[in-house]
Amino acid sequence: MSTKIVALVGSLRQGSLNRALLREAAAVAPTGLEIELLEIGDVPLYNSDVQAQGFPEVVNRLGEAIRQADGILLVTPEYNYSVSGVLKNTIDWISRLPNQPFSEKPVAIMGASMGNLGTARAQYHLRQILVFLNPYVMNRPEIMVPSAQNKFDAQGQLTDDSTREHLVKFLNAFQTFVTRVGAAQSVLLGK
Amino acid sequence: MSTKIVALVGSLRQGSLNRALLREAAAVAPTGLEIELLEIGDVPLYNSDVQAQGFPEVVNRLGEAIRQADGILLVTPEYNYSVSGVLKNTIDWISRLPNQPFSEKPVAIMGASMGNLGTARAQYHLRQILVFLNPYVMNRPEIMVPSAQNKFDAQGQLTDDSTREHLVKFLNAFQTFVTRVGAAQSVLLGK
Amino acid sequence: MSTKIVALVGSLRQGSLNRALLREAAAVAPTGLEIELLEIGDVPLYNSDVQAQGFPEVVNRLGEAIRQADGILLVTPEYNYSVSGVLKNTIDWISRLPNQPFSEKPVAIMGASMGNLGTARAQYHLRQILVFLNPYVMNRPEIMVPSAQNKFDAQGQLTDDSTREHLVKFLNAFQTFVTRVGAAQSVLLGK
Amino acid sequence: MSTKIVALVGSLRQGSLNRALLREAAAVAPTGLEIELLEIGDVPLYNSDVQAQGFPEVVNRLGEAIRQADGILLVTPEYNYSVSGVLKNTIDWISRLPNQPFSEKPVAIMGASMGNLGTARAQYHLRQILVFLNPYVMNRPEIMVPSAQNKFDAQGQLTDDSTREHLVKFLNAFQTFVTRVGAAQSVLLGK
Repeated sequence: MSTKIVALVGSLRQGSLNRALLREAAAVAPTGLEIELLEIGDVPLYNSDVQAQGFPEVVNRLGEAIRQADGILLVTPEYNYSVSGVLKNTIDWISRLPNQPFSEKPVAIMGASMGNLGTARAQYHLRQILVFLNPYVMNRPEIMVPSAQNKFDAQGQLTDDSTREHLVKFLNAFQTFVTRVGAAQSVLLGK
Repeated sequence: MSTKIVALVGSLRQGSLNRALLREAAAVAPTGLEIELLEIGDVPLYNSDVQAQGFPEVVNRLGEAIRQADGILLVTPEYNYSVSGVLKNTIDWISRLPNQPFSEKPVAIMGASMGNLGTARAQYHLRQILVFLNPYVMNRPEIMVPSAQNKFDAQGQLTDDSTREHLVKFLNAFQTFVTRVGAAQSVLLGK
Repeated sequence: MSTKIVALVGSLRQGSLNRALLREAAAVAPTGLEIELLEIGDVPLYNSDVQAQGFPEVVNRLGEAIRQADGILLVTPEYNYSVSGVLKNTIDWISRLPNQPFSEKPVAIMGASMGNLGTARAQYHLRQILVFLNPYVMNRPEIMVPSAQNKFDAQGQLTDDSTREHLVKFLNAFQTFVTRVGAAQSVLLGK
Repeated sequence: MSTKIVALVGSLRQGSLNRALLREAAAVAPTGLEIELLEIGDVPLYNSDVQAQGFPEVVNRLGEAIRQADGILLVTPEYNYSVSGVLKNTIDWISRLPNQPFSEKPVAIMGASMGNLGTARAQYHLRQILVFLNPYVMNRPEIMVPSAQNKFDAQGQLTDDSTREHLVKFLNAFQTFVTRVGAAQSVLLGK
């Protein structure tokens, strides 16, 4: 039985290093772990006056896809020492949905940057954001890819073996984590 | 000679408590401190593919207004334990402009929330974001308005005297801070 | 069968509001939840030259008590917008022990302060610290007691009913959380 | 006229990479910038019951040395994704002194670690801590030395030229920053 993971990527650029990282993740994922990208480029800016008229269709779709998934992969660039406004804006919408989609879901975080820190600052901000949303966030391994512009070729293919090895290790750990959270819920909650 | 402050508000809701707080700030500002709201609701989601075609006109306008101002007031709601995606998205655009508008400017932060913490979590995230942008951020007094729904009436008028007093104190301190940063630059940089 | 919780308090003051909060927690804990305070006032300043000669006996004892416990309660004051150096220093020692005591343990955080934020800033710093230590940290409910000097009497007895109700809710949630983490480990790890 | 900087180092280990980094800083500091290390290994654990009997002599001495200095250099290792408890404990004492020593002083932060992030997480926690203490903290350049064990030899001599170049740039910027803050205070406050 396969484990279905949905992913949100905080960069809209087509040639984004974070999109490339996610594609690589989908390609090297362990057997039984399926990763599907959910596009967020059409999510409007959050406005509760708009929400009062009804959630945008794209937000409803994102929320339902997340609810149906076994786990969530958040892939964040680092803009200005934090998560991208684009990703945060999507989270701001999703968090208001009824039957809040992130609640009690297993989550893992990854990111790539051109600098030395590999999105560390963004990832810790994201972890604080997630406390409110109440998922189970995997602690480790963490994956922060620095100098990512030197680790992907012009076609967005990962060329750095140690990054790939770490990515595989990360995905294996996440598969275990998702299974474990699911089992705990199954045993204890009768879900 | 007056001091010109421009303000960004991270909530787009017309009845926003943070907008109400900013209006009150403009109304009670000390003589010589002018506060102008810059609207950010038309800023598109950040996308560097779009940027490569040229900055959106609204972003250029925001950047120029900030460059011309003597100081910047950032008014942030707290969504999901951090700054709103809406505000972060605007910052993500502005930060990429040539002659980066926030650089070396005096900045103050304020916020109001319906919960107990009055946007504290959002404000500390914002402070970290601002390290990268290199303004001078006023340390104190801080202004975090908790339970704000009980401190404004249905017309968005502030009804809480102690909040007003603190706001006046905050604005006086910011006026001094702006003057001081300006003087230091004048003396040392010949600006 | 009872659940054994050990607690660390980041304030050494005998009349500490955080110590008072912990005593109240122990008094109102649900049936089957035992809370034991571990004293940390004798832990020396962390120094890896000292560690190279062998861990101080008090650190070994703390580590073993944590390993034997079913869960950990961290009670932190907020000093200078973060966790106390006293608590961090103890964590710095414990984290170096073999068979790292915090690993995979259920953890909950609480705190009381005289200000408005009730140790919020300290708690989010502590959550980031804990990412490295790899426990399972309960997301909610959070318990941050503001203006605590008005909620305890001169004998350190809690006089505020709504704080007590929230504390009971918090402890019930933690009992469930500990059980759930334990069940997941039992099912999946054969522990 | 020389600029007098005092430094606190958060690691007590004699062979500490952060001590080595500070020694290198003192050696390559620009003309007119003197850096003096203040030892903090004898500071007791913070306890306000002890404070009530009078500040420890070492704390009084540290406070006075900081008050007399033109600027402060904080050198922090990263333990458990934050500043060391040792450094935080010293700050917790100093912050309680009358005529709070950090207030309005220019501060710069540096750090070295064996991991990839070069103390980034510790530095951002420290920046939040400093908001309360109200110094002027230099935004940039930041100096975070990753993989530091490969950049110093067995005698603690820096062997990495690019780190040295960055360190010199950092110290030049700090000298300018200290001068600038001093001039602003001189002009505006008549200090």
